[in-house]
Amino acid sequence: MRLSAYFLPTLRENPKEAQIVSHRLMLRAGMIQQASAGIYSWLPLGYKVLRKIEQIVREEQDAAGAQEVLMPTIQSADLWRESGRYDDYGKEMLRIEDRHGRDMLYGPTNEELITDIFRTHVRSYKALPLMLYHIQWKFRDEVRPRFGVMRGREFLMKDNYSFDTDYQGAVDAYNRMFVSYLKTYARMGLSAIPMKADTGPIGGDLSHEFIVLADTGESGVFYDKAWENQDFANMDVNYADMSEVNGIVEKYTSLYAATDEKHDTENCSVAAADLKERRGIEVGQIFYFGTKYSAPLNAVVSTPEGEEVPVHMGSYGIGVSRLVGAIIEASHDEKGIVWPEQVAPFQVAVANLKADDEGCTSVSEDLYAKLSKAGIEALIDDRDERPGAKLANLDLIGVPWQILVGPRGLKSGVVEVKNRKTGAVEEMTPEAALNKFAS
Amino acid sequence: MRLSAYFLPTLRENPKEAQIVSHRLMLRAGMIQQASAGIYSWLPLGYKVLRKIEQIVREEQDAAGAQEVLMPTIQSADLWRESGRYDDYGKEMLRIEDRHGRDMLYGPTNEELITDIFRTHVRSYKALPLMLYHIQWKFRDEVRPRFGVMRGREFLMKDNYSFDTDYQGAVDAYNRMFVSYLKTYARMGLSAIPMKADTGPIGGDLSHEFIVLADTGESGVFYDKAWENQDFANMDVNYADMSEVNGIVEKYTSLYAATDEKHDTENCSVAAADLKERRGIEVGQIFYFGTKYSAPLNAVVSTPEGEEVPVHMGSYGIGVSRLVGAIIEASHDEKGIVWPEQVAPFQVAVANLKADDEGCTSVSEDLYAKLSKAGIEALIDDRDERPGAKLANLDLIGVPWQILVGPRGLKSGVVEVKNRKTGAVEEMTPEAALNKFAS
Repeated sequence: MRLSAYFLPTLRENPKEAQIVSHRLMLRAGMIQQASAGIYSWLPLGYKVLRKIEQIVREEQDAAGAQEVLMPTIQSADLWRESGRYDDYGKEMLRIEDRHGRDMLYGPTNEELITDIFRTHVRSYKALPLMLYHIQWKFRDEVRPRFGVMRGREFLMKDNYSFDTDYQGAVDAYNRMFVSYLKTYARMGLSAIPMKADTGPIGGDLSHEFIVLADTGESGVFYDKAWENQDFANMDVNYADMSEVNGIVEKYTSLYAATDEKHDTENCSVAAADLKERRGIEVGQIFYFGTKYSAPLNAVVSTPEGEEVPVHMGSYGIGVSRLVGAIIEASHDEKGIVWPEQVAPFQVAVANLKADDEGCTSVSEDLYAKLSKAGIEALIDDRDERPGAKLANLDLIGVPWQILVGPRGLKSGVVEVKNRKTGAVEEMTPEAALNKFAS
Repeated sequence: MRLSAYFLPTLRENPKEAQIVSHRLMLRAGMIQQASAGIYSWLPLGYKVLRKIEQIVREEQDAAGAQEVLMPTIQSADLWRESGRYDDYGKEMLRIEDRHGRDMLYGPTNEELITDIFRTHVRSYKALPLMLYHIQWKFRDEVRPRFGVMRGREFLMKDNYSFDTDYQGAVDAYNRMFVSYLKTYARMGLSAIPMKADTGPIGGDLSHEFIVLADTGESGVFYDKAWENQDFANMDVNYADMSEVNGIVEKYTSLYAATDEKHDTENCSVAAADLKERRGIEVGQIFYFGTKYSAPLNAVVSTPEGEEVPVHMGSYGIGVSRLVGAIIEASHDEKGIVWPEQVAPFQVAVANLKADDEGCTSVSEDLYAKLSKAGIEALIDDRDERPGAKLANLDLIGVPWQILVGPRGLKSGVVEVKNRKTGAVEEMTPEAALNKFAS
């Protein structure tokens, strides 16, 4: 992509309305724009990152055996009356009346609707186990939306729902998702730690929330330092093998981790020397809630014994749009965003530091063309701007690698290759720079 | 994907509520389920097709130089008051009041919001031309939603907006989209013909609608039979070269085509022998509307001469969810759907016609494993069902190729490879069948 043509409205000043760093940096990097309170438009750079995160979530859901559907944003109130949640949900639910005076709502979650789909088509244990997920926009009418996409009103969520004949099957599904979440977050370059959680308005009696470590996080967390040396991103899991899956769950549920609300230093299972305290951000939560929805909605299956039983369910959420903010909270410095390579909007940025110099332009354009041809997502700053402004801008938007093409270096036949995270700069020929990325 | 585990709730009976063939077949093939009037959940098979269509649309938008953003579904009424459309829009607009009593709405289209994004960031002709698009769910509260996804209330639409300094620039953008649409629809296996159109509530004075030929179409169309021999799918366009783009537009706007409302056999430019009459379905529309929104919303840019002028705009829509229905209307037979290969949910289906036969099972499983490994999207019917039911089911869901593995054929060392569209069956060894697809 050419920066001269790219719609990337970066800001030099810190926007006053942004109280936390991810919100500030997303506005400054031209990733989002507020449409109204707690509701954002995603501009090209932001949307590119959002889609990368979404795709990692999708791939790991598919790998764990879940099937993708898409439920609509607008739901009928009738189903929520059946489950009893229509009145319970309070003012966070955006209630709507259509032209015929029917009560509708913008879905804040989808337990009712997915249970309706299930009960329409499934009658027998033979169709189970089943996990259906979707990645869809939700709406929660927060009193005071703030912190940008971290607590917006319209937000993108992956929610998965599992259906099993009995408790044991449901726990298997829960454990598959537990393992899949470890891998999902790690693939985005995050350290996410599962912690026992209360179930809140979803209900149920088994729940974990996944918390990403970030110094700017909203809540305190305590954990065994062994959490820091796990390579979940490259974990090879056979989800069909429940003893393997359960083994992973057992291993990691016995490794200590707790939010500050639940932590008790006096009585915790980990030695003081191994206990770490940091801050974190919740980026997902998984629930087993049994027959809480299937019983009132009459979603029953016949067992092998011919009995009819309400199906056992769980739900598994990931805050997809929230993750964009969470990743920035976990990975930034005073200059701007530092994207983990896995979710970076571009892999490499080529900066032509002197756009009116023929040599710089020809080397930059050649590098950009060859990187693009090799299938690398490359950005070229081909604008007529001061070098300082270009460098600051690239640091702000956080592309992992920068190739800086300036007249001084070219005299010695080299360009500079800079790592955004470490700041380390290496001089090399343009060919060597190309080979570093397009090998 | 294994049919034994796939959530594909096909129906044997024709659902009574469906009046047109695409609605009937989408319900029967387990692609969608009605959530409430005119609002659908997309089940795995349907969503897979929807995403393929969406991806083709995206690729062709990107190729034509448009940049992808995502605007939210819920908008503030304020912007619509600024443009004057809040009161004009009538009951089709889903109006919402949030918890603080603010007037909101579910966007039926996005001219106002995109103009607001533009005016916030762009002030100079130097940032132009610019085309921003998104693929997002819209809501139109139709009085009588019907025909399934063809006229739903919540529907997925690609809408692109162009911004240019003057009329000529805007026409260039319009022409780029005109050409890009020819290619987009052709890549889905559709014959779509652009026809001069009225502009309706969007406004403006230049518009074409793109109409897909289908015998079951909603309106009559007349066109020069030369339209039928165009290979738009493989058209190689350089969108930077306006003389090339304009040449294509000129060529095809002078090739006769008109809806029955505008057609007049007495005075039409094409010889009677070359005039074809068929039926069609509208699947997209493009508009130039000048300063209709930029003037009231004060979206102005400075020209090279230092003047401030309201920006010239156009908008370009494609009904993405509607296309799923339109493709089925254009491509089906009495047995079910006939997917064009480009949008088929799976490329090949392997049917194990005798699941309790060891030979059939081993050959089917081996073919499925090898096809999947070669990157082919394959489906295997591994269920314990009668062969007749399996064949009818595969015909219904319309996978382009079927490999039928039965005990009789295997005795002679062959399987049957059937083309869904032509019905032609070829016998060959399992190895030859594999090579046919995974070469």
